Amino acid sequence: MDLSPDWVVGFVDGEGCFHVSVNRHPEMKLGFQVLPEFVVVQHSNDRSLLFALKRFFGAGTVRSNHGDRDCLRIRKLDSLQNVCDFFMRHPLKSRKNVDFRKFRQIVLMMLDKKHLNVEGMIEIIDVALEMNSLDRPRLLEVRSALLNG
Amino acid sequence: MDLSPDWVVGFVDGEGCFHVSVNRHPEMKLGFQVLPEFVVVQHSNDRSLLFALKRFFGAGTVRSNHGDRDCLRIRKLDSLQNVCDFFMRHPLKSRKNVDFRKFRQIVLMMLDKKHLNVEGMIEIIDVALEMNSLDRPRLLEVRSALLNG
Repeated sequence: MDLSPDWVVGFVDGEGCFHVSVNRHPEMKLGFQVLPEFVVVQHSNDRSLLFALKRFFGAGTVRSNHGDRDCLRIRKLDSLQNVCDFFMRHPLKSRKNVDFRKFRQIVLMMLDKKHLNVEGMIEIIDVALEMNSLDRPRLLEVRSALLNG
Repeated sequence: MDLSPDWVVGFVDGEGCFHVSVNRHPEMKLGFQVLPEFVVVQHSNDRSLLFALKRFFGAGTVRSNHGDRDCLRIRKLDSLQNVCDFFMRHPLKSRKNVDFRKFRQIVLMMLDKKHLNVEGMIEIIDVALEMNSLDRPRLLEVRSALLNG
């Protein structure tokens, strides 16, 4: 199945999610890992659409989500950069575009290795806190842990 | 906001619904009314997308749905014919296309006035029963009421 850029934008305006989480990770220098991901969830009847999107972006993993739903997740930073470049050339029309801009800002900061020091990590968390799709109490907890060293 | 056909297809693949209900209606000859409708629901933050779709199809009504959600409904038969023509020229890529084909069949049968006699109405209900998005017990109840005169 071939997808056109406009179809992808329309579908992602409906079904896509730009998500950033920050998790405890003992092997990371700061003890925390920033995890930006682009996710599309579909009923497993439409799994073929997820594979078509995976081919379109040349990245990601299709897995069972929960129940009868599957999802495509793109997590690799250079792949996310490609996803962001695509949605800069072909802007989302929904309010999801606001979250996307913050998401892209975080991806660029990570490409710039800002997540490897405390100041950068706090800067990333502050951008993430402006997004809709996140676990706010969790981020505030991490932010406070980082500030208190 | 200008929408391209491909964006509309992608968005409706994600967020659109082709729905058929059959309701008791004392003023109708058979006592029942077939109500096909094309519906798109969105968070009210994205109400502008619903108005853009309304302009795109040149039809429909945008209303508050429930809670913080709004919806565009297209119900007029000649407008639904235009919607169906559009999705024949620009096919949906998801499994929603299967329901759409049944929906279109019903719209064409109604344009052909089949819903005005018992045999036609039962034929319409039998097509509707093959769709995902419907109230099956309700349709079976109406079907049996029609058969038993």
